[in-house]
Amino acid sequence: MDSDLDDVRDLARTFCEKEIKPNIETYIANKQVDRDLWNKAGEVGLLCLSVPEEYGGGGGTFAHEAILIEEQARVGDSSWGASLHNGIVAHYILNYGTEEQKHAWLPKLASGEAVGAIAMTEPGTGSDLQNVKTKAIREGDEYVVNGAKTFITNGAQADVVIVVAKTNPEEAAAGISLIIVPTDTPGFSRGRVLDKVGMKGQDTSELSFVDVRVPVTNLLGTEEGQGFIQLMEQLPQERLIVALANVAAMEFCLEETLRYVHDRHAFNRPIWGFQNTKFKMAEVATEARVARSFVDECIGLHIEGKLDIPTVAMAKLWCSERAQKVADKCLQLHGGYGYMNEYPIARVWADLRVSQIYAGTSEIMKEIIARSLPAPS
Amino acid sequence: MDSDLDDVRDLARTFCEKEIKPNIETYIANKQVDRDLWNKAGEVGLLCLSVPEEYGGGGGTFAHEAILIEEQARVGDSSWGASLHNGIVAHYILNYGTEEQKHAWLPKLASGEAVGAIAMTEPGTGSDLQNVKTKAIREGDEYVVNGAKTFITNGAQADVVIVVAKTNPEEAAAGISLIIVPTDTPGFSRGRVLDKVGMKGQDTSELSFVDVRVPVTNLLGTEEGQGFIQLMEQLPQERLIVALANVAAMEFCLEETLRYVHDRHAFNRPIWGFQNTKFKMAEVATEARVARSFVDECIGLHIEGKLDIPTVAMAKLWCSERAQKVADKCLQLHGGYGYMNEYPIARVWADLRVSQIYAGTSEIMKEIIARSLPAPS
Amino acid sequence: MDSDLDDVRDLARTFCEKEIKPNIETYIANKQVDRDLWNKAGEVGLLCLSVPEEYGGGGGTFAHEAILIEEQARVGDSSWGASLHNGIVAHYILNYGTEEQKHAWLPKLASGEAVGAIAMTEPGTGSDLQNVKTKAIREGDEYVVNGAKTFITNGAQADVVIVVAKTNPEEAAAGISLIIVPTDTPGFSRGRVLDKVGMKGQDTSELSFVDVRVPVTNLLGTEEGQGFIQLMEQLPQERLIVALANVAAMEFCLEETLRYVHDRHAFNRPIWGFQNTKFKMAEVATEARVARSFVDECIGLHIEGKLDIPTVAMAKLWCSERAQKVADKCLQLHGGYGYMNEYPIARVWADLRVSQIYAGTSEIMKEIIARSLPAPS
Amino acid sequence: MDSDLDDVRDLARTFCEKEIKPNIETYIANKQVDRDLWNKAGEVGLLCLSVPEEYGGGGGTFAHEAILIEEQARVGDSSWGASLHNGIVAHYILNYGTEEQKHAWLPKLASGEAVGAIAMTEPGTGSDLQNVKTKAIREGDEYVVNGAKTFITNGAQADVVIVVAKTNPEEAAAGISLIIVPTDTPGFSRGRVLDKVGMKGQDTSELSFVDVRVPVTNLLGTEEGQGFIQLMEQLPQERLIVALANVAAMEFCLEETLRYVHDRHAFNRPIWGFQNTKFKMAEVATEARVARSFVDECIGLHIEGKLDIPTVAMAKLWCSERAQKVADKCLQLHGGYGYMNEYPIARVWADLRVSQIYAGTSEIMKEIIARSLPAPS
Repeated sequence: MDSDLDDVRDLARTFCEKEIKPNIETYIANKQVDRDLWNKAGEVGLLCLSVPEEYGGGGGTFAHEAILIEEQARVGDSSWGASLHNGIVAHYILNYGTEEQKHAWLPKLASGEAVGAIAMTEPGTGSDLQNVKTKAIREGDEYVVNGAKTFITNGAQADVVIVVAKTNPEEAAAGISLIIVPTDTPGFSRGRVLDKVGMKGQDTSELSFVDVRVPVTNLLGTEEGQGFIQLMEQLPQERLIVALANVAAMEFCLEETLRYVHDRHAFNRPIWGFQNTKFKMAEVATEARVARSFVDECIGLHIEGKLDIPTVAMAKLWCSERAQKVADKCLQLHGGYGYMNEYPIARVWADLRVSQIYAGTSEIMKEIIARSLPAPS
Repeated sequence: MDSDLDDVRDLARTFCEKEIKPNIETYIANKQVDRDLWNKAGEVGLLCLSVPEEYGGGGGTFAHEAILIEEQARVGDSSWGASLHNGIVAHYILNYGTEEQKHAWLPKLASGEAVGAIAMTEPGTGSDLQNVKTKAIREGDEYVVNGAKTFITNGAQADVVIVVAKTNPEEAAAGISLIIVPTDTPGFSRGRVLDKVGMKGQDTSELSFVDVRVPVTNLLGTEEGQGFIQLMEQLPQERLIVALANVAAMEFCLEETLRYVHDRHAFNRPIWGFQNTKFKMAEVATEARVARSFVDECIGLHIEGKLDIPTVAMAKLWCSERAQKVADKCLQLHGGYGYMNEYPIARVWADLRVSQIYAGTSEIMKEIIARSLPAPS
Repeated sequence: MDSDLDDVRDLARTFCEKEIKPNIETYIANKQVDRDLWNKAGEVGLLCLSVPEEYGGGGGTFAHEAILIEEQARVGDSSWGASLHNGIVAHYILNYGTEEQKHAWLPKLASGEAVGAIAMTEPGTGSDLQNVKTKAIREGDEYVVNGAKTFITNGAQADVVIVVAKTNPEEAAAGISLIIVPTDTPGFSRGRVLDKVGMKGQDTSELSFVDVRVPVTNLLGTEEGQGFIQLMEQLPQERLIVALANVAAMEFCLEETLRYVHDRHAFNRPIWGFQNTKFKMAEVATEARVARSFVDECIGLHIEGKLDIPTVAMAKLWCSERAQKVADKCLQLHGGYGYMNEYPIARVWADLRVSQIYAGTSEIMKEIIARSLPAPS
Repeated sequence: MDSDLDDVRDLARTFCEKEIKPNIETYIANKQVDRDLWNKAGEVGLLCLSVPEEYGGGGGTFAHEAILIEEQARVGDSSWGASLHNGIVAHYILNYGTEEQKHAWLPKLASGEAVGAIAMTEPGTGSDLQNVKTKAIREGDEYVVNGAKTFITNGAQADVVIVVAKTNPEEAAAGISLIIVPTDTPGFSRGRVLDKVGMKGQDTSELSFVDVRVPVTNLLGTEEGQGFIQLMEQLPQERLIVALANVAAMEFCLEETLRYVHDRHAFNRPIWGFQNTKFKMAEVATEARVARSFVDECIGLHIEGKLDIPTVAMAKLWCSERAQKVADKCLQLHGGYGYMNEYPIARVWADLRVSQIYAGTSEIMKEIIARSLPAPS
């Protein structure tokens, strides 16, 4: 298994260095990665690493997914929405889909033929999933989907979208179902790619559903009203992915900045020669190391099936906040260049800011954690 | 005088609301304001407010300049480099220029016919002005300027650039002079507008000087080697401008976010209904109020000629750091929308980050402050 | 007036240096100042500086009170509860008392013959004054006071206590009155001096009232049910005193630590020689300077009668939090000696911690500030 | 092994609950634990848990020591200097002592017959061990020790002190040796127990050595000049102990405060009912959990002999800083009671402050970490 992981590491590193790193500027200019990147990744076997081989996946565990997340961070890329595609979309289908659904979609997700997205957030609801307004009303053998979604990662490229919708609008959580919507279905349309503070190569988009009709077999699973539970069950992995990406970003910041402060001179010595620089770098290294320890523990627990919701909320809360602070210190050590997008630290600083917001804001994380604290007997 | 200030306030507010606010998106798309904006501002009398009327200015004080800075912040604009043009470039000419220089340039700066810039930073030197590499070597009746500058505000539009150069490269500080270079002089060229984290409508640029020949009368003042002293004398006003802009930005963040948290609902109530929201807003309001108190004291001292270098360093250090924290809290309260550039808070957050860097980094400010602390007797 | 203030400054400085500074250790050992200190202060005219001369006071303003607060902080003393006696107890009597009450108590408070206290907090209520349990029930021409109070400054030495009590226990705020209780009244007793984290020379105590009978003329003012309003009106001055004391403490920390880092050597140079030391001291000096600016503005507003409740809440919130951070940085720069009570910084660090709690916690301050923020129209 | 650890856990918990918790007030009043506590702990087998059985110890590992540290923290005690005695003093003798030294001292340390201390810090040197002034000059078969030490844990009760001294004052690090000094040796004397901010039951003392003569066989090990290396080798375990104690303190703060905020009411509801309380508790729980993860990883590495100096410096730096913040938030949630020493949170807050200072200050930790960061190739 360890040698297997080493192989994935080599493969992922080479892929990121060769296929992604040289093209980041292009992705940003286009507000999305080259569509072809997905197929290339599929070809070398880097998609759906933790999906069983029978569905075209790599047959690995979250440990394998983690490697790709880390290696992408290592080249400073935030454009490619692979972790969502692999670690979230594919896993909904894998965990809740019927055999037909799995066979229909997982091989395509694994090959890159299809890009996946999941549509939760709506213009007016934010983190409050119980109150989504999108409806999927059954009419005969079809669901008719109507609604608007926003902040959808992979929105511009997605071939399939898992839509969080109310099959029973009278109910709150109990009325929610997940519906698989291929994006070539009439009535589906994409809004513009959103103009964000960072993550500028990622095609975060608005999606619109106007009388989108899909067969009832596109209900994820076989029973209506399971959507909220499915979401709750999958959120830990989603949040662990965010936490891990943040740790990897901290390590990237550390490495980038160490290089900069050794290379760059001011007042006739390398910036490294100042005690303030050394102390800030020591703080950054410490933050990254501590975060790594915690996230690695969480990954281990997750692979064993023991990672609970409050613990992963801690990981997401903590790593996202510390990563921002780390990036901020590192940017500052770059002086004026830290504010220029040609320096990776500038982009990482702006990219990271969303981590305290998406997949549940820091405030939601605190609610979750607080709720889990034992009342004294 | 107070009624005079009220008039400027009205004028500036109307101008910013009418001429700037509707065009911010355009400025950002073009990476610069419309060139015409300068002329319009000149026409209504908003340029060079603190330059004496005999040179075409408004005849006011820094209190007048402050109003324009505040009103620009009030509409969330960071594109227009007016404070640099008015508060810095014009003041170098006003304070050190010969009568000929003043009459040549100040009326044009005041009318908007000429846009001004000052070129200090070089690709390799950062805050270390004593070691600039740009040279202005006297040959007969001319200075021949050679060198490269970067991070130059108004770089793409400037008609006149005050260049920090060594007239005597053998010397450190004592070799520095300021040279007035009209940008239509052969050998001058502009690099691209830099791709920055924020301030995206501001035409921060690289400038290049290759055998640029200007008459010796373009030496600012009448004596070589005064440049470093001139820079040191003007830095307080420059830093006070940064501090004030940061306070105004905090006030803008407060107002924007108050509106948002009252309007926006989550979990069936306005975000304002959560104690966490109230507490964060209370913290933000406090930060803004405290900063306002200090900066207003500094402005008063400055108008009386009593603002010393360490005190203004404190203002710049403190306001720039706190403004970033304020913007960060406010962005967070916006949830996902805080990360979208269509919401002003998103842009302000990214804009503000440069304040801890330009006009002397926070680290330089700390050096200055530390040096001023009395050794105990 | 300015020369008058200078005289008070000289007087207060000499008094603090001569009468207080040498005795701080004794105060701490005894958990209270020498009772005689009050009389000495009264003799030289340092008590009740802002009480009119006709009542035995100094005839000054809050500016005079402020000087004594600053000078006490300048010698690092937190034992003497003078600011409460002068700025709070005397002012309740001055502002709400009948002529008889004023003549009865103010001269004694001004001479030091009587030490004053105010009893608000109860074991179970904390900041929630509307729900005090202490009762003062009228029976004929007397009020019968029953209840328990805690955290009472000057509790062990007080000759007169203003007691917050319900004259009408059916009502909330509207049932509250302030009752003047001389401490030689039968039924009054003092608990132990509380064992606190800091402020160890201050006789913070529990007080007990069991069928304490005072004449109805001991109602502060002439009307029952005014107590809550009186408290609300006086809280700004109380909070301003806390804020000012915190600013003065920051300045004390700065001075003490500057001396230490210049004197003390480590690794063959003064600690001052390290960049980290310089940067921390620059941060400390900046914090102190900014706080001073804001508090001085607040004092000015207060003297003009324009200091509103939310603004002073900001001052109290902000100064108390920053003072703790300042003391913490300064303690750290002292190394092991910072943890030893023979070094003033150690005591100040522990003393200051209560400032975020008493006179309304930081959380209460945030509630007050939040309530004052304008809802957008 | 795990069941063994469970037994130690039970034993330590019972011991701390029964022997320590009821006596903490007494320890504080006496500025030291009852001397008898050591013997009781020895009797039940809680001393020297990681010393081999042949020397009277428990035959365990650092995992066993860790349990006692945790259980002591669980009852809020900081008086008993057991972790120094067990984890530091005994380990110097175990790791560097001759068989004679081990047999002479370890059984006594394990039984509680002898209390151990180590004397590093001097009035003028702080963390700068290379420049200690204490000398141990060989004269014939004796070392003559002269010098003064300060901040010595267990100083008032120690029966044996390992003294850091220069056997060759001409040398820096290479001149340092460790000398075993029984405290009944003529010329040894103890100063007062130091008056500290916290840790008030711990007998931190000054020690004085005036012509103290010990046989040359009291040199720790067999070779002069090894002291500095020995110190460097043992510092990781010392710092790990500090880090672990800080994590345990965070867990204690969490538990204490959870109880308090559920029990205590304000404004007619439990303090727990406020969102601010929930959010602060969530932050505290997160900090404690993250710190636990890292320290447990470090303990695992240490037991495997793989814990390097920079990693443990990170643990010490980080845990000590975060523990203070945690205690500070928890104290604040206690309101006025948080400032009263009868509430454990008050004492813990003051106790913890020393953790950023002793066993190497945070600044020293940063130097160590910075030095370990790789220069980019």
